[in-house]
Amino acid sequence: MTLEALETTQNFALFRQHAVRRIEAVLQSLLPDEHILPARLHGAMRYSTLGGGKRIRPLLVYATGLCLDLAPEKLDRPAAALEMIHAYSLVHDDLPAMDNDDLRRGLPTCHKAYDEATAILVGDGLQAQAFVALSEPDWGVDPQWQVRMLAALALAAGSRGMVGGQAIDLAAVGHELALPALEQMHLHKTGMLIRCAIQLALCAAGVEENSEQGGMLLQYADRVGLAFQVQDDILDEIGDLQQTGKAQQGADRSRNKPSFITLLGLKEAQNYAQRLLEEALAALQSWQHEADHLRALARLIVERNK
Amino acid sequence: MTLEALETTQNFALFRQHAVRRIEAVLQSLLPDEHILPARLHGAMRYSTLGGGKRIRPLLVYATGLCLDLAPEKLDRPAAALEMIHAYSLVHDDLPAMDNDDLRRGLPTCHKAYDEATAILVGDGLQAQAFVALSEPDWGVDPQWQVRMLAALALAAGSRGMVGGQAIDLAAVGHELALPALEQMHLHKTGMLIRCAIQLALCAAGVEENSEQGGMLLQYADRVGLAFQVQDDILDEIGDLQQTGKAQQGADRSRNKPSFITLLGLKEAQNYAQRLLEEALAALQSWQHEADHLRALARLIVERNK
Repeated sequence: MTLEALETTQNFALFRQHAVRRIEAVLQSLLPDEHILPARLHGAMRYSTLGGGKRIRPLLVYATGLCLDLAPEKLDRPAAALEMIHAYSLVHDDLPAMDNDDLRRGLPTCHKAYDEATAILVGDGLQAQAFVALSEPDWGVDPQWQVRMLAALALAAGSRGMVGGQAIDLAAVGHELALPALEQMHLHKTGMLIRCAIQLALCAAGVEENSEQGGMLLQYADRVGLAFQVQDDILDEIGDLQQTGKAQQGADRSRNKPSFITLLGLKEAQNYAQRLLEEALAALQSWQHEADHLRALARLIVERNK
Repeated sequence: MTLEALETTQNFALFRQHAVRRIEAVLQSLLPDEHILPARLHGAMRYSTLGGGKRIRPLLVYATGLCLDLAPEKLDRPAAALEMIHAYSLVHDDLPAMDNDDLRRGLPTCHKAYDEATAILVGDGLQAQAFVALSEPDWGVDPQWQVRMLAALALAAGSRGMVGGQAIDLAAVGHELALPALEQMHLHKTGMLIRCAIQLALCAAGVEENSEQGGMLLQYADRVGLAFQVQDDILDEIGDLQQTGKAQQGADRSRNKPSFITLLGLKEAQNYAQRLLEEALAALQSWQHEADHLRALARLIVERNK
């Protein structure tokens, strides 16, 4: 897992393996040790963050860094902060009052492995820890850009971002949404955090969002974010039990949640995901091979089967 | 509610009134409007934050600012961020899986006024919003100090601060704690956020924690933080139902939680609170009248009856 490997490898499978190992090690070091009091809480925070997951957001951060000629050590904290926010959101989403899921990636969800009160606190603690990771005063990035990273993360994670999307999602159960409203929900729920992965890499490189590079990469992010959710709905429809690791197939539909499938049908949703993929790739036109891993990631997201 | 009034008034009652009105107005402006989507979530976030509470942490921020000769507009965002963290912690603490309280200040708790899923998201959204408030890139403070404020808040709010204290508290139900362990719990649960109020004011003034001024003010904060909790336990023992606004008197003891009362008895706990008050006041010796409101706040905390 050398830095050179991350920077130079042309092989996406190898890049992915290295980056996933790297973020795992970074998370290991940035999460409080489970010997630190309160030990049970810290153990539960580690249980909910380490050892699994596709690490899509960190992969996006590292792959964007290659387009911006950034060393991966400038991206470790942003990648880890995003993953902690993502992990906390899963812990809270799984709670009985929310999606009430017992299994996640084939393992007991946090409130099942521990208890409900602990799971609430794990989510709360992971959110704070994301901001601990990103606000390290001795990190060595320009503090003006560091403040902008923190602002981007807070906005993407909060009520006008991920948490807001979750609230819109809950309110939408049993309702039919038109395509713009459904896209608005997903823009909040998953799109903002995926966009944030690119924003954080731009900040780490000192590149403005409204620059030509910034605009193109954010356009990529928005298409990929939406494609991610369309594919999620497709998988929920066709994915088999073992591959998704969820306890119940078609769970969303059975609870009468609006989805791209109920709205477009399976075939049209698959076409839509392909179109979004093409638009994401088009946004990367001005890059040569430096953007190959971002291209492969977009394909991975649309063609994933779990 | 002029700024001059906050800066010059020698009258604590007037200072308190002005500062409470000021933080209410600041929170109004820094919380997302309830017309912004998702409107119900934003309404619930405002319901859980506005229109009540003692505002102890903002009062501490503003009163510390007077000792450091700081204009209140430099303190609005830190005061609001702390209050949002405090508000979110109450919403999550009240949840059925935690303290299961139906009333807070005589009004339905968030999960009663709305629903449990919304209350989880309200807490999550308020925590993020605290970091939104403090990471405003155009705020006009030195970004190096702004990063340090964000780091202090994240640490104080997280698993090695407030959330950690909550976890220790939950684990302590049914156990007897020795005085050091009980103090350790409260240092996390309430003490770190009170200390953070002083830390944020120090950052706003560009004063190092390990300077003479910084050291003294933090010593004040630590004594006040502990006194706050001792008095809380005293009130839980003797406070009458109407004044605390809680549905059940002596609720903590009935659930067999360790407290300063079970450990020291009522009389000795009262003596302890007085001793902590004296130590807090002693830490302010080198200030003249500029510290009068901090002194009055310490007395208010120890002598409050709700």
